Amino acid sequence: MNLEQAKQDLMALQSKMSAYAHAMSLIYYDGVTAAPRGTAANRGHALSVLSEEEYKLATGEQTVALLELLDAHKDELNEKEQRMVYLLLKSIRQMQKIPMAEYVAYQELLVQADDVWHRAKETSDFELFRPLLEQIFETNIRFAGYCAPEKAPYDYWLSEYEDGLNMETCDQFFATVRSRLVPLLQKVAAVPQVDNACLYGHFPAQAQEKLAWQLMKLIGLDLDHCGLTTTEHPFTTSFGSHFDERITTNYQEDNFSSSMFSVIHEGGHALYDMGSDDDLAYTVLDGGVSMGIHESQSRFYENLLGRSRPFVERVFPLLQDAFPEQLKNYTAEDVYKAINRAEPSLIRTESDQVTYCLHVMVRYELEKQVMAGRLAVKDLPQAWNRLYKEYLGVDVPDDRHGVLQDSHWSGGSIGYFPSYALGSAYGAQLLKKMRETVDVDDCLRRGDFGPINQWNREHIWKYGSLYKPGRLLEMALGEPFDPNVYLDYLEEKCRDVYGI
Amino acid sequence: MNLEQAKQDLMALQSKMSAYAHAMSLIYYDGVTAAPRGTAANRGHALSVLSEEEYKLATGEQTVALLELLDAHKDELNEKEQRMVYLLLKSIRQMQKIPMAEYVAYQELLVQADDVWHRAKETSDFELFRPLLEQIFETNIRFAGYCAPEKAPYDYWLSEYEDGLNMETCDQFFATVRSRLVPLLQKVAAVPQVDNACLYGHFPAQAQEKLAWQLMKLIGLDLDHCGLTTTEHPFTTSFGSHFDERITTNYQEDNFSSSMFSVIHEGGHALYDMGSDDDLAYTVLDGGVSMGIHESQSRFYENLLGRSRPFVERVFPLLQDAFPEQLKNYTAEDVYKAINRAEPSLIRTESDQVTYCLHVMVRYELEKQVMAGRLAVKDLPQAWNRLYKEYLGVDVPDDRHGVLQDSHWSGGSIGYFPSYALGSAYGAQLLKKMRETVDVDDCLRRGDFGPINQWNREHIWKYGSLYKPGRLLEMALGEPFDPNVYLDYLEEKCRDVYGI
Repeated sequence: MNLEQAKQDLMALQSKMSAYAHAMSLIYYDGVTAAPRGTAANRGHALSVLSEEEYKLATGEQTVALLELLDAHKDELNEKEQRMVYLLLKSIRQMQKIPMAEYVAYQELLVQADDVWHRAKETSDFELFRPLLEQIFETNIRFAGYCAPEKAPYDYWLSEYEDGLNMETCDQFFATVRSRLVPLLQKVAAVPQVDNACLYGHFPAQAQEKLAWQLMKLIGLDLDHCGLTTTEHPFTTSFGSHFDERITTNYQEDNFSSSMFSVIHEGGHALYDMGSDDDLAYTVLDGGVSMGIHESQSRFYENLLGRSRPFVERVFPLLQDAFPEQLKNYTAEDVYKAINRAEPSLIRTESDQVTYCLHVMVRYELEKQVMAGRLAVKDLPQAWNRLYKEYLGVDVPDDRHGVLQDSHWSGGSIGYFPSYALGSAYGAQLLKKMRETVDVDDCLRRGDFGPINQWNREHIWKYGSLYKPGRLLEMALGEPFDPNVYLDYLEEKCRDVYGI
Repeated sequence: MNLEQAKQDLMALQSKMSAYAHAMSLIYYDGVTAAPRGTAANRGHALSVLSEEEYKLATGEQTVALLELLDAHKDELNEKEQRMVYLLLKSIRQMQKIPMAEYVAYQELLVQADDVWHRAKETSDFELFRPLLEQIFETNIRFAGYCAPEKAPYDYWLSEYEDGLNMETCDQFFATVRSRLVPLLQKVAAVPQVDNACLYGHFPAQAQEKLAWQLMKLIGLDLDHCGLTTTEHPFTTSFGSHFDERITTNYQEDNFSSSMFSVIHEGGHALYDMGSDDDLAYTVLDGGVSMGIHESQSRFYENLLGRSRPFVERVFPLLQDAFPEQLKNYTAEDVYKAINRAEPSLIRTESDQVTYCLHVMVRYELEKQVMAGRLAVKDLPQAWNRLYKEYLGVDVPDDRHGVLQDSHWSGGSIGYFPSYALGSAYGAQLLKKMRETVDVDDCLRRGDFGPINQWNREHIWKYGSLYKPGRLLEMALGEPFDPNVYLDYLEEKCRDVYGI
């Protein structure tokens, strides 16, 4: 085989893989949107066939031979081709290290764990979920040993979600975060709380949906290629390439801000995915590179922009149009303060910017200890409750509002949480950098996201997965990552909202 | 390979094929429901990969060897296995007869023709569509020659949509239909028209949607496995097996009966598909056998049951609940008469039961002549208009309301139309047979579709595609097909509604 042919085959391989990915994402999406409730097993049938076919395609002899040939001629490949070969080979080599039977057993464990976790959460019964969670932690430790025996298991998994991340980095990051957020929160607790009554009332789903589309348009989403629909839990997905992106939301009729900010958050994910250079479509480089960078974008739009005063002033007329009766006695400033209210709480996904990283830190500390064998799964609930008291000062009434609240562990995602906090901090430093050349507040006041999106496109989006997250970030920032920028931002926000 | 293994491989092959079918149907469905409008090319990418993979699977060397082995041991297979091998081999052998390049070119022609037809219809510009339609007819004639050189081309295509059907049968059928319907229509025209004002007004889509779900439940659809959504043109599809069925409708806010009867019609298709024996799932025998039998079921529920007096009396309270203001001055009898109003018109899909077959007959006559080379495509508009005048007595004002109205020809479906008329007639004879053992009117009055559905399940649905349509029908009827039963029914209906 000559090299030119091999390069073409590389593109054809990825093009095929993207079609399988399209089909499987869509089957999942259908399951949580339009599908009748009794059809899960039927989707499972199609998914098992398609994932097996995709697996054979991605890891078959022919593919391995192709990739090894290309890898041997690495120097003759361009930067993009090199990265494609690297990413494809990486996942194959990883798969080869895990015995097939154990991999299949793990997939089955996760299906069962998802079901049991749902029931355990409903009845607040950790003991029901415990045996499965034990197996999940055990398996993740075992798989880490197969794939990266030279590393601590948790380091392996952290790096899976954010290439290059390890406990040393996380420890430093969270120590810095904790040292400034815990006192900040104490200061906030010492002054009168801001009123958030304007967020509550009756806000019909239909009016919220209309607002959601207006917000999507306002932040610059291309509505010809990005859809919106309703699901129990909001998420963002793409079908086969960044040319077809879908975000979802959920309308709570007693509080309009929940869907509003979830739409802007998911919209940030979608902007990032859709901003990949078009020639990355139908390759493994298409779309965002890591969870951390993804969250840096989603939380950038949701919080750094979405909860800023100029943005709130810009959207307030839209809110008044949508909810004229409900908001008639309120001002933009009332809404601004309400959506920036900081307050310790029990549930991560409903928490504010100031406390958010502390919620994540609880999970990080616990994962780290269990993965190192220093904490038993059976002792997780007590440890969870203790840390919530210590970091956030709240008492956890039951496991449903505690250790059972997130779906990540039942899905096998251990080492995923830190990227939420890191992403928030990345975003703040990116914004600071952006402000050097873009008058962000002026853009927000005018409702013109063009220059903001253009900066993100040029520095982050267009590269897709071409660069590792650490390198991408440093290229964009022109300096090392420093979490203090984010903490400065949060202190400034509290100063503004609470006058402290 | 031993035979037992081959039988298992046969099932595995079909199981895989069903997963590809699931993915491709869903991608199509997404395109006409949730997808953002700029995403067609992205779906095209996935569809072209998946259809190529499916094609390789269905017609590859390994598959052909397997099917030929099984075919050679036909006598050792059970009835279902025999039919599976027959159907799979039939489509392979057909594909083998058409040169690949011509097949691909035809698929591309159809994509283009669909687009051009839409524009031609909008602007009523037949000349725009003519060159493509000429190519479609030419190609269909050529392909028929490859696949069945011993047959007249149109006979080949008729038999593709309704196995065993040919022009001789159609000619006899339509001659009988015409001989009784044209005079019937003249009689109707001679007496005062019934009033259908009760169908018109303002009927909010939301109320219509609620009614649609009630109707689906009433006719006995399993809502755990059958969904409903909105599309421009109503249709029914299944995803991978009869365990996941979807119907679609379209709410016209000025006329509630349009969506109401489209839901019952598509519901009939769905009942048929979903009634396949469960062990047929994930095989080629799953779901309805032919268009004719499918229409016999959909039009059975829509017209024979749905437009009957006992059914209208049963659903009238639901209509009053849905549209209390709009219907306050009307009775069930008013609605019954309105939905059975017979009247020559221009558009097939909006026509009533009495004129419907005449609309179909126009298309049959024209297809027959073009396929035989006795009529040029360029002369279709004039011929269309002449036959509408002759059969229905109406003047066609433009091609949009004439020869350009249906999507079938642009989709390459020539020979498809007769199954609509045949299906209607099959249904009437099936109902007559059903009445021998089921008190259908009593069931309708009580809103209990159980015994009706049970009869259809036992005689039609459960077999899926196990028997050819002709055999299935005769098994169910216990006698040969006779279109006069349907014509008796239509005369009786007009007698009842018009007193003639």
